[in-house]
Amino acid sequence: MPVTKEELLKEAQKWSKIAPPYHAFYHGKVEVMPKCAIRTLQDFSIWYTPGVAQVCKDIEKDKELAYEGTSKWNYVGVVSDGTRVLGLGDIGGQAGMPVMEGKALIFKYLGGVDAFPICLATKDPEEIIQAVKWIEPTFGGINLEDFSSPKCFYILERLRKEMPIPVWHDDQQGTAAVILAGTYNALKVAGKKLNTAKISIVGVGAANTRTYYVLKSAGVNPKNILMTDSTGILSSTRKDLEGSYKWQIAKETNPDGVEGGIKEALEGADMVIAASKPGPGIITKEDIQGMASNSIVFACANPIPEIWPWEAKEGGAKVVATGRSDFPNQVNNSLVFPAIFRGALDVRAKTITDEMCIASAKALAKYAEDKGLNENYILPGMDEWEIYPLQATEVAMKCMEQGLARKKMARQEIYDGAAAIIERTQKIVKLLMAQGFIASPPPEPK
Amino acid sequence: MPVTKEELLKEAQKWSKIAPPYHAFYHGKVEVMPKCAIRTLQDFSIWYTPGVAQVCKDIEKDKELAYEGTSKWNYVGVVSDGTRVLGLGDIGGQAGMPVMEGKALIFKYLGGVDAFPICLATKDPEEIIQAVKWIEPTFGGINLEDFSSPKCFYILERLRKEMPIPVWHDDQQGTAAVILAGTYNALKVAGKKLNTAKISIVGVGAANTRTYYVLKSAGVNPKNILMTDSTGILSSTRKDLEGSYKWQIAKETNPDGVEGGIKEALEGADMVIAASKPGPGIITKEDIQGMASNSIVFACANPIPEIWPWEAKEGGAKVVATGRSDFPNQVNNSLVFPAIFRGALDVRAKTITDEMCIASAKALAKYAEDKGLNENYILPGMDEWEIYPLQATEVAMKCMEQGLARKKMARQEIYDGAAAIIERTQKIVKLLMAQGFIASPPPEPK
Repeated sequence: MPVTKEELLKEAQKWSKIAPPYHAFYHGKVEVMPKCAIRTLQDFSIWYTPGVAQVCKDIEKDKELAYEGTSKWNYVGVVSDGTRVLGLGDIGGQAGMPVMEGKALIFKYLGGVDAFPICLATKDPEEIIQAVKWIEPTFGGINLEDFSSPKCFYILERLRKEMPIPVWHDDQQGTAAVILAGTYNALKVAGKKLNTAKISIVGVGAANTRTYYVLKSAGVNPKNILMTDSTGILSSTRKDLEGSYKWQIAKETNPDGVEGGIKEALEGADMVIAASKPGPGIITKEDIQGMASNSIVFACANPIPEIWPWEAKEGGAKVVATGRSDFPNQVNNSLVFPAIFRGALDVRAKTITDEMCIASAKALAKYAEDKGLNENYILPGMDEWEIYPLQATEVAMKCMEQGLARKKMARQEIYDGAAAIIERTQKIVKLLMAQGFIASPPPEPK
Repeated sequence: MPVTKEELLKEAQKWSKIAPPYHAFYHGKVEVMPKCAIRTLQDFSIWYTPGVAQVCKDIEKDKELAYEGTSKWNYVGVVSDGTRVLGLGDIGGQAGMPVMEGKALIFKYLGGVDAFPICLATKDPEEIIQAVKWIEPTFGGINLEDFSSPKCFYILERLRKEMPIPVWHDDQQGTAAVILAGTYNALKVAGKKLNTAKISIVGVGAANTRTYYVLKSAGVNPKNILMTDSTGILSSTRKDLEGSYKWQIAKETNPDGVEGGIKEALEGADMVIAASKPGPGIITKEDIQGMASNSIVFACANPIPEIWPWEAKEGGAKVVATGRSDFPNQVNNSLVFPAIFRGALDVRAKTITDEMCIASAKALAKYAEDKGLNENYILPGMDEWEIYPLQATEVAMKCMEQGLARKKMARQEIYDGAAAIIERTQKIVKLLMAQGFIASPPPEPK
């Protein structure tokens, strides 16, 4: 395991060297494939004219039938304007395409969802909203990706309200759901309680803002929360926040009017959730020493966490999580978004609520708990693939309970269907690789 | 072979009965599949973060690299507002979805093109243009489908001018290209010449308007052409046409100022190309009797041609073509559009010109000629799959010759690549069917 900054950068650089030639070798990452029988070309009389006309006529009479006779039920648009791609900032829609196609790949491989990249040539919030509304008939759901803050809040809010299908911003909701799942289990390992824990949140961007609201919905007392942006701890005395999306949080949290920066915000806290900027050194060992005993540290900045895990441990942390796959306890959206969409699509959800996210987080946390929690295992890995149908089932059940499902299904039927569609994709990929339709990758560049 | 109107309707009804349950059984027709190796989940470090960031950075510096590292090179948006779907009229974007997904299926199966349906929730021309421009970064080409006339002319013209990728309206250009191919060979069979033949065009909608311009580009003398709309023969004395898209044609054709309807328009003509409204009886046996000897009749209305083939023969026609698969000489867009896009995409065309369409038509015609023309074989069938790489090669060569290709390739390389990508899809479908990943269809409904 790499341990110095230099070694970590070298490790990251390894992937940066492999990725461009591999992308050029496969010339992209997802393709469109027929999924219906084509015995002879005469079958086109069913799939196209003249037969298809009847399917169109049926949908014209009842739009909901598009969920039966087309792939709308399983199509998700991965929409981006490329204004906040990974840690790269505003690189635009065209340059965001490799990420959106990669997201589509993960959607299908882990969730059985037919996601398709839609990279936009506009960065204007109203135009983005308009574009998404115009392409809606194709899709059963929309995944917003890598939109800059604060416009991402406005775009999500408008589209959730005005669209008849689920609209999701993974950088907000996906991150919040997986952080909640990790929080449940980290608190158990550290012997703390959700409703009494003092939680310090560092960074008030898209991810942490949504995390705040989801933690609140899940039962955390806002009065036990401090949030810190680059100016300092949020509080109702911070007049610079009036009119911004942070103002409501400033009013709900920090009842004692604590002032200061990260150091002061962490003092006596049971847990810190940081999603601010790449470290190390954003949070120090001394900051951790000021926290309560058996403290919990989620340092989620990429590619380098706000504090190295071993420094956090030296400072007294009991549980440390990061966004990286090479340390224990990876907090990764990919653990949840394929599952949440799987569940939402299967019951033809009209929207995805915080309660559905919380149901997903609980299912994910429970899976790890059933396996046996310890300070190095608070969350499963992506390779524990049962987490996807398990979460999908709870999401779908919650959706039906909330009256937001277009379709009713039994619990076992949801689980079996979700498991089958995910397994099918993974088996097909294996088959296509074995048969040479997906070639073996070229040698790795030196 | 069905021969009465009743039998034909019964045949069409058979497909109308099978299509809805079959569509519901497969729950749509195309899906998104990974096309890169996934050996373990660690490969996501290449396909997604952290590796993918380098691919994004490269494209940010040079947008053309999107053609290397993403699937843009092979993505085509099948865009429709559903205002003129098959013979169904304005059924809207959602109800058009089965056709657009069917088109995507044909694109992939016959052309190896990754086409994806984009059904729009607006019918306003300016908004349609705006929507297509906003989603451009994803795609290497756009296929407009089933837009009503006359707005389809304006939308195509604007987008062809303003977009950096090929924009194509299949109902215009695809139809024109296949009609031209059929015309080449029909004239040969009938012993007539392109530059002297008198051609009567019945119907002045999207297909025939474009056919007119393509025939002109291919060498037909406009002065030998008469065009007839529902009011009568177009001529410069028809003041009702001023300001409409028909006005230019009215001025270029009909130098003798012939007046009248279909009967008068066909008098002495060597060939009639009809794409007007479903027959029979739109063109009569007597109308055909007034044509020159060894006349050619293309009666392309669907589902029933303007005149039954046997009636046209009784009237003296030497060659008869229709849009139907159950008569000889089917004139079908599907013979050309997958090939034209294959060729255009392979050299990363900036646009698709009339000359590229003509190159395609010539290649298609030559294939049939090499096999041996006769009055019942002027065009190959879709199952003669070599027509696709053959046409694609000529389209790509013409594109390079015109300086409109982003990529240079050798003739053989184009052919081999096109043949390989088409064969690959057909083999994968066969494999997925054999292995049960695409299930056998259910029994046909009675």
